Amino acid sequence: MKKPLILVTNDDGIFAGGIRTLIEIAQELGEVFVMAPDAPQSATGHAITIREPLRFQRAKEFPDLEAYKCSGTPVDCVKLARGVLLKDRKIDLCVSGINHGSNASTNIIYSGTMSAAMEASMEGINSIGFSLLDFSEDADFSQSRDYVKSIMEHVLENGMTNGKLLNVNIPKLPKAELKGIKICRQADAKWEEVFEEKKDPMGQSYYWLTGKFANFDERPDIDIKALQGGYISIVPAMHDLTNEAAMEPLKVMEGIVI
Amino acid sequence: MKKPLILVTNDDGIFAGGIRTLIEIAQELGEVFVMAPDAPQSATGHAITIREPLRFQRAKEFPDLEAYKCSGTPVDCVKLARGVLLKDRKIDLCVSGINHGSNASTNIIYSGTMSAAMEASMEGINSIGFSLLDFSEDADFSQSRDYVKSIMEHVLENGMTNGKLLNVNIPKLPKAELKGIKICRQADAKWEEVFEEKKDPMGQSYYWLTGKFANFDERPDIDIKALQGGYISIVPAMHDLTNEAAMEPLKVMEGIVI
Repeated sequence: MKKPLILVTNDDGIFAGGIRTLIEIAQELGEVFVMAPDAPQSATGHAITIREPLRFQRAKEFPDLEAYKCSGTPVDCVKLARGVLLKDRKIDLCVSGINHGSNASTNIIYSGTMSAAMEASMEGINSIGFSLLDFSEDADFSQSRDYVKSIMEHVLENGMTNGKLLNVNIPKLPKAELKGIKICRQADAKWEEVFEEKKDPMGQSYYWLTGKFANFDERPDIDIKALQGGYISIVPAMHDLTNEAAMEPLKVMEGIVI
Repeated sequence: MKKPLILVTNDDGIFAGGIRTLIEIAQELGEVFVMAPDAPQSATGHAITIREPLRFQRAKEFPDLEAYKCSGTPVDCVKLARGVLLKDRKIDLCVSGINHGSNASTNIIYSGTMSAAMEASMEGINSIGFSLLDFSEDADFSQSRDYVKSIMEHVLENGMTNGKLLNVNIPKLPKAELKGIKICRQADAKWEEVFEEKKDPMGQSYYWLTGKFANFDERPDIDIKALQGGYISIVPAMHDLTNEAAMEPLKVMEGIVI
């Protein structure tokens, strides 16, 4: 049987530990093609580069692989891989990550990792974004390695029903304490921002965005709750943002005639 | 009665014609506060600035207004306005745009205009993103001015049911040919990318992202269809990306035990 073609990307950049683990796992499951940013691109959301051209080059970090680093955003990486180097090939799976830090709940909206996976899913490619709830550079990705592999295997073997995109978040726990997997909904939590004001040598103010994540969502099947309970959360996600429930009450506006 | 407080932002930058029109309309309806990027920020999606600090200053373009320009993305603008200068005030409405170019269909995913409005909606603020289907710098925003005002008035007077975010797109037509408003769903169309390859003086390749937008969605109530028929499309949108229909079939993965 022909090996599946797996596109690997991330938002922390080609140098990050998380993508190294993901590449190793992907190599056990198929033919691997890597296109990742040449610099950190966290929190770039679904940004694309339209006012500057894009460049890419072989990634010397992975000399034995078809691996490239790109000057653009995570979404640019997926577009470039598909549109240039893999133009005539079918991509069987796109995996993004493993992100250093949570993309659970509304973090999905800001996440470059998840935006890259969403971009591939919009092209009909089954896509999974993986994130470990550990921001540190030397986060230990080995604890959840077997789960990450099983999730990828499951999708490669069974495909997906009614969708193309998964948001997988993994608690920062030793392997023995990981309780399993829960299929969840996106928690309606949010960042409560605090701006730290500083003065530059000219006396002008500048501001650092900081804040803490606060959850008031009490539904039993939200991702944050699963993670707190020691489970890996999987939220099936989509790019159709239509708020169905709001359509009918808005129809009164169709009566506005100028 | 106290005037409502209206936050105005965009992604084309404080200099753009579209925001000038939106500010003028907002001034007729309430007290206006402006925080917009100091440079064009189209297609920045929901990016936020976390590796650099943010700066803002009074916008001399609008000397008689509380208007500021900011070094960050459209989402940064909303966060900064809320978190610093309007910290102790209740924002009654956030309007973003008027964007130069379409944000219908999946363009919402890439759009800085819509991401700014979404950010405000995530904070519980009724928010509307407006876009005119005309990319040109000197697009004529006067044709749809009365509709834009009526939509803002409607939301200020009636609020919104079951949601906080509207994606409004306006066809490029003379006023007399605008047929009215349709409440729509987001069309499942997409960009078909073409990368234009060029060589720099050192012989290295670089790539410009180009493409055309292609729609194969045939549902009767999609935004693209309304726009083609001469209607202003309003899609109620949301930030909960959970793909409800995919949850049940995925539950088989809860059986994976390592």
